[in-house]
Amino acid sequence: MELELKEMLTDLEALKQSLSDPSHRAPLDKLQLHVERLTNLVKAAPVRRSKVKDMSAEVVDSNPYSRLMALQRMGIVENYERIRDFSVAIVGIGGVGSVAAEMLTRCGIGRLLLYDYDKVELANMNRLFFRPEQAGLTKTDAAVQTLSDINPDVVLESYTLNITTVQGFETFVESLKNKSFRPSKQGSGVDLVLSCVDNYEARMAVNQACNELSQTWLESGVSEDAVSGHIQLLIPGETACFACAPPLIVASGIDERTLKREGVCAASLPTTMGVVAGLLVQNTLKFLLNFGQVSPYLGYNSLKDYFPTMEMKPNPQCSNVACVERQKEYILVKPARDAAAKAKMEVAAQSTAECPPLHVDNDWNISVLDDSPLDSVDARASDTLPEGLTRELPSADEFLKLPTPEATAVDDLEELRRQLEAINST
Amino acid sequence: MELELKEMLTDLEALKQSLSDPSHRAPLDKLQLHVERLTNLVKAAPVRRSKVKDMSAEVVDSNPYSRLMALQRMGIVENYERIRDFSVAIVGIGGVGSVAAEMLTRCGIGRLLLYDYDKVELANMNRLFFRPEQAGLTKTDAAVQTLSDINPDVVLESYTLNITTVQGFETFVESLKNKSFRPSKQGSGVDLVLSCVDNYEARMAVNQACNELSQTWLESGVSEDAVSGHIQLLIPGETACFACAPPLIVASGIDERTLKREGVCAASLPTTMGVVAGLLVQNTLKFLLNFGQVSPYLGYNSLKDYFPTMEMKPNPQCSNVACVERQKEYILVKPARDAAAKAKMEVAAQSTAECPPLHVDNDWNISVLDDSPLDSVDARASDTLPEGLTRELPSADEFLKLPTPEATAVDDLEELRRQLEAINST
Repeated sequence: MELELKEMLTDLEALKQSLSDPSHRAPLDKLQLHVERLTNLVKAAPVRRSKVKDMSAEVVDSNPYSRLMALQRMGIVENYERIRDFSVAIVGIGGVGSVAAEMLTRCGIGRLLLYDYDKVELANMNRLFFRPEQAGLTKTDAAVQTLSDINPDVVLESYTLNITTVQGFETFVESLKNKSFRPSKQGSGVDLVLSCVDNYEARMAVNQACNELSQTWLESGVSEDAVSGHIQLLIPGETACFACAPPLIVASGIDERTLKREGVCAASLPTTMGVVAGLLVQNTLKFLLNFGQVSPYLGYNSLKDYFPTMEMKPNPQCSNVACVERQKEYILVKPARDAAAKAKMEVAAQSTAECPPLHVDNDWNISVLDDSPLDSVDARASDTLPEGLTRELPSADEFLKLPTPEATAVDDLEELRRQLEAINST
Repeated sequence: MELELKEMLTDLEALKQSLSDPSHRAPLDKLQLHVERLTNLVKAAPVRRSKVKDMSAEVVDSNPYSRLMALQRMGIVENYERIRDFSVAIVGIGGVGSVAAEMLTRCGIGRLLLYDYDKVELANMNRLFFRPEQAGLTKTDAAVQTLSDINPDVVLESYTLNITTVQGFETFVESLKNKSFRPSKQGSGVDLVLSCVDNYEARMAVNQACNELSQTWLESGVSEDAVSGHIQLLIPGETACFACAPPLIVASGIDERTLKREGVCAASLPTTMGVVAGLLVQNTLKFLLNFGQVSPYLGYNSLKDYFPTMEMKPNPQCSNVACVERQKEYILVKPARDAAAKAKMEVAAQSTAECPPLHVDNDWNISVLDDSPLDSVDARASDTLPEGLTRELPSADEFLKLPTPEATAVDDLEELRRQLEAINST
């Protein structure tokens, strides 16, 4: 638009010069004023921030990374700038995925791969991120528009496709394999896949791709009544995959599209989805930047502000062939990995013993209490279901009844799979 | 801009008519084409969605409230549309306050009052909500711009002022008293105040105003190392006020401005702030729309995904005169309120007994477990501090040592107040 206005000014000037009668110049002067005013209006409009070559910790108002680099000084993260090396794929750019994408973009993630085939609707305006003027755009286009304005340093790749179709699934897998962003990376081309989809088939497609590629992923979900949600870490071969034990709420196959056709829709809230996106990306940051503890499973019951945790072992009789292959591989490498982890812990313990305490004086008498949270220890020690999980996983009492946790998990998952198949076949 | 362009077209037309020499018309025609093209460009730019008179539950893509009204059909909320009657004040439009404002706006809250005196900086871009092109605007102006685009149905009032100054505090209190939005409302003119500020004085100012007005408020905070946060419900006279027992992290008086001057700054993350904002607004919705349980205190330790809860009784020796007055009032009305609550529960129990069970058949064998979460029951049964709260509240071990919880709270808070005064006076 600025160019167009500039051209108009040149034309006006030429016209003024060509006029023989000076009395005709007055209206042209008025037009010129108009154009100049418009030019100023256009110039005052938003300019994008320029790219930043290196992340700086300098504390100035103009530094978009100062508050993140401060995590190093605070002793939380060892090397924050490593975030620029990482690629994260987000499948489903809805109420959770879009907010997760915005959080990672603002954190300065290296590369984001976005997958969705849906369009923005006004009916999505009760969740964060999309704006009413984006209604009608594809979610991927609208997301790229907003995210590149927020942080031009992030490499954005968008895929407008449905991963549950044969063609879509192939493109999805190929895009995950692409290593041109960081050729030296081991394994696939991405560091983590975040599943933020709202239906069973799409979750199964992500599960299939990640099992095939031996790709660690984080799954997320929000209940139909909008008041609870969860995140779950899935490491092929090491933890239960989505086919080992799908949560009932998803397995029943009720997704938004089916519901909408019948004139009803699932409820949703920006709060629940914002909390789930926050927990999802916080665990993503912990996983990538190696701080804190990544939760194997974390639920959110918003009516009671209750957050159940648990762990799920893989099912050796899982119907997913790739999952069973990954399990066999994991059993082979586990002894070596355990030994390495033990050695590392011993070295860490020794170096702690050699270092003097950080704070010798303790003016405020701050003391450290025993920091093993009782509720999560209980949940993780066995395969029993913690309170609050009855609605999302069936047969919770089955878990409680059976004697040995190890054997239980397997038998119970088998039984669960049979029940689900029976339900699906009716 | 559209008006300006229209005016130009009229001027051009007049000019063309006034020209005696038709050969002069050609350049004017070219100019006219320019203006028409510009008009089309401007028209193609985003249009705002129009206001909606009544909230509808109709499931169409163009209905921005369908997913919220679905909360009624799902049995979560009795009357969602009541949200349009409510006024919420948000003090501090930073990393937590801005996201809280966006969530409430997308939920269709009746009226939002926004308070801040700061300007948007690029250094804020690691949190959600503000965009780089808004750098330099006041946070209140930038927020009104974004929020009114998202949902024109919300009445927005913005106050660009510092509530810790004498003049700012007066305007703040007067604005909370104003009942023109809903003259029939009991008490003040707002239903809830959300404190989203980052320093001690501002929290004390909110505390003072709410104690004076007997105004219920929710306080929120995020730690300097960006990895933990909390929300807390404060009902004057009924729960501890901010002067009864201020958390140490705030009482030490380290705020962003002080830190920045010394060339360091607090760390912050969009994840932690997004989670805290989500928990804050979820509890706001539960409070306003009367569903679920509002948490008296909820912490978020993101390194371990641990969420401590507790309750704090008011301190009869609190230094805040208005707090002590509210406590006296509460003691007077408490017996009548308890009796009314008991009667209501008995009626509810009776009507439940008269109704047949909702689901007679139970194909999936879904059972309800005992739903009192052990960790929060422990925390609420006494005034001891739950695990995970050592960093934010000093002398946690003092709470554990003393014998009778009732007496303990008072002595300990008195002692705490003395310690804090000693620290502040040095």
